[in-house]
Amino acid sequence: MNWLKEIQWDDQGLVPAIAQESGSGKILMMAWMNREALQLTAESGHAVYWSRSRRKLWRKGEESGHQQLVKAIRLDCDGDAVLLEVEQKGGIACHTGRHNCFYRELQGDAFVEILPVIKDPSEIYK
Amino acid sequence: MNWLKEIQWDDQGLVPAIAQESGSGKILMMAWMNREALQLTAESGHAVYWSRSRRKLWRKGEESGHQQLVKAIRLDCDGDAVLLEVEQKGGIACHTGRHNCFYRELQGDAFVEILPVIKDPSEIYK
Repeated sequence: MNWLKEIQWDDQGLVPAIAQESGSGKILMMAWMNREALQLTAESGHAVYWSRSRRKLWRKGEESGHQQLVKAIRLDCDGDAVLLEVEQKGGIACHTGRHNCFYRELQGDAFVEILPVIKDPSEIYK
Repeated sequence: MNWLKEIQWDDQGLVPAIAQESGSGKILMMAWMNREALQLTAESGHAVYWSRSRRKLWRKGEESGHQQLVKAIRLDCDGDAVLLEVEQKGGIACHTGRHNCFYRELQGDAFVEILPVIKDPSEIYK
């Protein structure tokens, strides 16, 4: 696993990971990975993150079924950011039931919601 | 500037910012912004980051000419990641002279360079 040594982990042992949808090119979310999460992502072919709030591995989709099938793992010039190209199961990446997490856009001097809720979160997390 | 209050700054007062190229949808880079950088980005319409290594504002393109014209600023569900839709001047976002910073891809158990150098950095930073 020499490739893992090329990652510049931060002082908490984490690296930011951006998930981009294959095909559409849309950004689905940004989350964090520790070494184990990134290794598991590469080995399993499904995105595994590190939940900073719950302080544990977060196998994306384990509750919602909205897994992310990983098509590519890319690393930036400084080695301190990871980009995943993924196929988003269910077409919903965000826990709010939207396609992706970046559903607020600055218009004038306020953030405005620009994406619809596709599925009610209470239906996703039963 | 009430909209700035919706950002969940980290314990260093920073938020990660992803720059995505308008049109192509390609991810150009990920960098960091403090409050002033984000405010200046919104006001000027050009991406301004916070350089963690140099500990100062980084007006993207000030040396290279490779400015990023900002078309949209989006915020994620947790308010702790920013997505910029930008037009990349010169078609080069990376300081290595490549189109974008995510030019290494995991293939097998090694990162392989997948993007060409468009312009030699010594020609960019004179």
